[in-house]
Amino acid sequence: MARWEPNARARLVLAALDLFAEQGYDDTTVAQIAERAGLTKATFFRHFPDKREVLFAGQETHALLLAEGAAAAPDAATPLAAVAAALDALAASFTPEQREFGPRLLTVIAGNPELLERATFKRAALATALASALGKRGVPELTAGVAGELGAHAFYRAFERWVDPASRQTLTELARRALDELRLAAAALG
Amino acid sequence: MARWEPNARARLVLAALDLFAEQGYDDTTVAQIAERAGLTKATFFRHFPDKREVLFAGQETHALLLAEGAAAAPDAATPLAAVAAALDALAASFTPEQREFGPRLLTVIAGNPELLERATFKRAALATALASALGKRGVPELTAGVAGELGAHAFYRAFERWVDPASRQTLTELARRALDELRLAAAALG
Repeated sequence: MARWEPNARARLVLAALDLFAEQGYDDTTVAQIAERAGLTKATFFRHFPDKREVLFAGQETHALLLAEGAAAAPDAATPLAAVAAALDALAASFTPEQREFGPRLLTVIAGNPELLERATFKRAALATALASALGKRGVPELTAGVAGELGAHAFYRAFERWVDPASRQTLTELARRALDELRLAAAALG
Repeated sequence: MARWEPNARARLVLAALDLFAEQGYDDTTVAQIAERAGLTKATFFRHFPDKREVLFAGQETHALLLAEGAAAAPDAATPLAAVAAALDALAASFTPEQREFGPRLLTVIAGNPELLERATFKRAALATALASALGKRGVPELTAGVAGELGAHAFYRAFERWVDPASRQTLTELARRALDELRLAAAALG
């Protein structure tokens, strides 16, 4: 029977990140993650299908937030204004804990080809979710596709800046700034 | 000792695609692929690390072609003109055989989450290779990043059209057209 364990999900994520950073991703087992979190393996598997997904479990929620944010933008919003609204909705869901473990997350992913591949897929999935939401607003397919890619690009750029302990801006502010920078970059393509 | 087997690599790719399409990716073994190709498992492993990489083995060559193509563009070329030159170089390397087995390749990839993830990673790797080549031409980082993503997007769009048996244009023509469509889409972002 599933007992209710307070904050089990967050504890498992933190335990996994600590262990991946300490002893490497490949050498860390689900049993070790559960033990470090003070939970059982069964609890782990109620939250995640495997150790890799601990790091990417937010994907569906994030895609949904982007889609809802884009859908809620005013009818007259340009495609990029709808992307900005989507990024606002996603950024607002991030917690101080996510900021705190951000650098460890990025380091662990960058150090492992399998995780890097999975992270790339998550980014593409978010771009696709955003493009699909824009399509529902009547944005033509190709423009929606490009806007989705720019939006995902902007969010990842903003996240990297936000998790830097020296950063003083909110994730929302950083996402808006990154999107504006990418808009200017796109205008300079020639 | 490695014997020389004529066209072994292409035979292995074709055998793998046939088997993946016939009996599914998960149920196909390296031994079956080698047998279908009339080769040994040892020969398979001289060409590919595992069955998944049969489908993505061109990644490094493709990245190199893009980089060389972008580098060879005239000094005065805009970022997008350098992307077009890179796509020309990549498109010129594709063979009629690749066109012929293109639809099977796309079907097999689309039907398997693991392959879809790997394909997404290859596309991102090509975008990064292109962005890096543009960076070496002095294109600012963000513009190079956006141009790399557009270039990869254009190539995949062109490839899907090219492998359609009803298509009459060359891959080079289709890649140029897709890049132009994406340029216009980017200009309509708002």
